[in-house]
Amino acid sequence: MTTARPARSPAELFAAASGGDRTSKARLLSLIERGGEDAREVGRLAAPLAGDAYTIGLTGAPGAGKSTLTSALITHLRQQGEEVAVLAVDPSSPFTGGAILGDRVRMQDHATDPGVYIRSMSSRGHLGGLSAATPQAVRVLEGAGCDVVLVETVGVGQAEVEVASLADTTLVLLAPGMGDAVQAVKAGILEIADVFVVNKADRDGADNTYRDIQGMIGLAERKAGEWRPQVIRAVAVRGEGLDDVVAAIEKHRRWMEEHGELRARRERRAAAEVEAIALGVLRERMGTLRGGAALAALAARVAAGELDPYAAADDLLKGIE
Amino acid sequence: MTTARPARSPAELFAAASGGDRTSKARLLSLIERGGEDAREVGRLAAPLAGDAYTIGLTGAPGAGKSTLTSALITHLRQQGEEVAVLAVDPSSPFTGGAILGDRVRMQDHATDPGVYIRSMSSRGHLGGLSAATPQAVRVLEGAGCDVVLVETVGVGQAEVEVASLADTTLVLLAPGMGDAVQAVKAGILEIADVFVVNKADRDGADNTYRDIQGMIGLAERKAGEWRPQVIRAVAVRGEGLDDVVAAIEKHRRWMEEHGELRARRERRAAAEVEAIALGVLRERMGTLRGGAALAALAARVAAGELDPYAAADDLLKGIE
Repeated sequence: MTTARPARSPAELFAAASGGDRTSKARLLSLIERGGEDAREVGRLAAPLAGDAYTIGLTGAPGAGKSTLTSALITHLRQQGEEVAVLAVDPSSPFTGGAILGDRVRMQDHATDPGVYIRSMSSRGHLGGLSAATPQAVRVLEGAGCDVVLVETVGVGQAEVEVASLADTTLVLLAPGMGDAVQAVKAGILEIADVFVVNKADRDGADNTYRDIQGMIGLAERKAGEWRPQVIRAVAVRGEGLDDVVAAIEKHRRWMEEHGELRARRERRAAAEVEAIALGVLRERMGTLRGGAALAALAARVAAGELDPYAAADDLLKGIE
Repeated sequence: MTTARPARSPAELFAAASGGDRTSKARLLSLIERGGEDAREVGRLAAPLAGDAYTIGLTGAPGAGKSTLTSALITHLRQQGEEVAVLAVDPSSPFTGGAILGDRVRMQDHATDPGVYIRSMSSRGHLGGLSAATPQAVRVLEGAGCDVVLVETVGVGQAEVEVASLADTTLVLLAPGMGDAVQAVKAGILEIADVFVVNKADRDGADNTYRDIQGMIGLAERKAGEWRPQVIRAVAVRGEGLDDVVAAIEKHRRWMEEHGELRARRERRAAAEVEAIALGVLRERMGTLRGGAALAALAARVAAGELDPYAAADDLLKGIE
């Protein structure tokens, strides 16, 4: 007769993860993704660990070379002796699950390095979605001794942009001929970028992309003393421009520290996290009102033109107050 | 001495818009975007008008040819005598505002046609964001006599995908060499597409894109009797394949009607709208607790590692209950 080994508690997992155990790290992140009571417990345990690691957000259109740049950055940071984690944040998708890791292949250079930890992250089941799951994952990694967390998002939609913009420094990756700077503006990424990287800078059109984005930055309104986004050219696949990218990140970090912005930004990140969790709780309450039938009944009346959506919302809110 | 002409009430604007006045239509949509009491009033007036127009969602990566396909679809629908509106939904962006209309240029063919109404739509200020603003805008357009509303989104992020997926029929546009079908899966659009259009089908790689997406559809789990997404080849810029696209939309529409899906989908859309408005109300309440200081104070403690985010969320929720 065999008995299942009892599952380790979040506290036990934390202790093991702090000692460098990768399986425990992975297990903690899974608990965060899955949500529920265990995620709460992980959140509670991770809370005191906040603030040690520097987080770098990385976003850009598919094909711009995010994984290549991430890989090159890892190499660079490792040479400086930093312990690095990568959270590859995928839009939550019931169909794809976490299985689409095609371009993680490029990361395999680092697969055997114990100082590098790479993980895809989704937020199915998590109260508050990625806005809450990502900061918690960062704290877990911080607690396990990580110095730098790279948060890479796969898309350029609002959700991805929001997640990337919650980092201490946000890199936006562009590439020539991908749809140009105007597309970047459309996607709303101009105002979240601290550093633009024009990747594939050896290709035709790179100068145009560089000029366009500089032009856009010039046109943007900035208050006196505000950070002006840096624009760096790189060929990430050959490691070219990497020193400049890292220098720009460092420059931004120093600027943030000198201006009290680092603390302010981390407080904004925490505010987004707390708000997202609170809204998640409320959303759950609304969804379970009268066994989940309240919203459906109201929606049917709105769809039939019998009730206006604001009145329906007011009615729904009465139920949770 | 001049006196300002008094602003027309939402009810007056509705009456004028129903008579075909474009300025009134535009004014109503602006009220929706801006939010607040006027949006509520517009929502109340538009509520009984729901259900007459057919809505087609259109999404895809930048550069896939969304505007070109939209323009070709307009031409086709106009030949059938349908009155058409296009809502071009941009991710809300404080910097860009609604000013980025570069690829709206292609739509100028229809600028002088009184049976076509084209408008960008953002959701700044709107309680519930685009999930609530878009259905309301659709109702206003329905009330003004529109037969088909095309909801075009500029991105492939989760927010855009959500908006597009709230349509009666959702088209997802792909183009060869744009990053392939795997990117589509990553963006989470596979499960929201009713019809895939492989645009620029005369280009290299189009067959691969077509085959890849068919393969993905084949692998997707579907319940018995569930709709299987159609895949259509087109060269929108020359109008090729447009008949097939329209036939696929029609086929999907008939399938929806026969299976009770059209009504179910519209009820889901209304549920998303009501929930988004309710959450918007709650978010406002949380933001204004103790003059807006409650969330900031809690966030500062979370950022400092003194409080865990779940406890902070619970504390915040106590304030609005």
